[in-house]
Amino acid sequence: MIPMGSGTSASRYVKAIHEVLKSSGINFVPGPMSTSLEVKSLQELFWVIDAANERLKEMGVQRIVTNIRIDCRLDKEISIHTKLEAVGP
Amino acid sequence: MIPMGSGTSASRYVKAIHEVLKSSGINFVPGPMSTSLEVKSLQELFWVIDAANERLKEMGVQRIVTNIRIDCRLDKEISIHTKLEAVGP
Amino acid sequence: MIPMGSGTSASRYVKAIHEVLKSSGINFVPGPMSTSLEVKSLQELFWVIDAANERLKEMGVQRIVTNIRIDCRLDKEISIHTKLEAVGP
Amino acid sequence: MIPMGSGTSASRYVKAIHEVLKSSGINFVPGPMSTSLEVKSLQELFWVIDAANERLKEMGVQRIVTNIRIDCRLDKEISIHTKLEAVGP
Repeated sequence: MIPMGSGTSASRYVKAIHEVLKSSGINFVPGPMSTSLEVKSLQELFWVIDAANERLKEMGVQRIVTNIRIDCRLDKEISIHTKLEAVGP
Repeated sequence: MIPMGSGTSASRYVKAIHEVLKSSGINFVPGPMSTSLEVKSLQELFWVIDAANERLKEMGVQRIVTNIRIDCRLDKEISIHTKLEAVGP
Repeated sequence: MIPMGSGTSASRYVKAIHEVLKSSGINFVPGPMSTSLEVKSLQELFWVIDAANERLKEMGVQRIVTNIRIDCRLDKEISIHTKLEAVGP
Repeated sequence: MIPMGSGTSASRYVKAIHEVLKSSGINFVPGPMSTSLEVKSLQELFWVIDAANERLKEMGVQRIVTNIRIDCRLDKEISIHTKLEAVGP
């Protein structure tokens, strides 16, 4: 999520979203360019995007550009852990 | 939405998603690299992503990588039309 | 390309980048959420991203978040035209 | 980078790209949904994208969809480390 019209620094907004994630109990991994979430269903994902969006609105952000990438596999169970393990170290 | 494990051509899947969009009544613009949708709320967006995902599952896609970009403005009303008009011709 | 710290409106920056594209002779299609380019090589793409980035720097943008999506096919010739034709109308 | 037409599993391709990154000496952090790179210039980034693309071609991938996100700041020095530190723990 990129706030526009709110200066060049976004760290306070990223922190606020991480708080939303923590209180939701969703497993997440912060990264330098994005945050990865592990959810059981699209519904859980949508719920948390909506909650994060509401949090930024409350903070006064006037324009929010959100980039979401979903990896949905039907052929096997995956998690943040299995995805990282498959490629490294 | 990018189907993995389903060959190099994706046009039949894109067409199927456009059918979902048409029957939903949502205003959309197909583009060469993505499709743009105009929705009234995040809920409407989530509903249609879920419907498109279900459609690809029914077609037998085993892994779906979906990239979504949301432009949410609180400072003024926008539409596909106003956005294109602001930068063109 | 999303300018941060430059207000909520980005249309003057998008227009400036379209001017860069026009003077380069590259075939492009403006869209509501992104602009699609047709290039012959990665080198041509890199050249134009660099030129667009320089243009925004000249305009005083302090932070630029750029999202690029490349569709590189080796199995057949594609263009903006063939991609749109494959899925529509 | 998402290979199309090469099955649902991409880990061998991700590993090959990580090898390219390692031999280039570029600082990178693998993540569950993407890999973050730290580069000194757009030229360095373009060089490594091209090298990674060539590697996938050599492996026989017929269609490569690449998503790149660039965070370019002119107002201060940033790194993977400073970005993670700004939002955590």
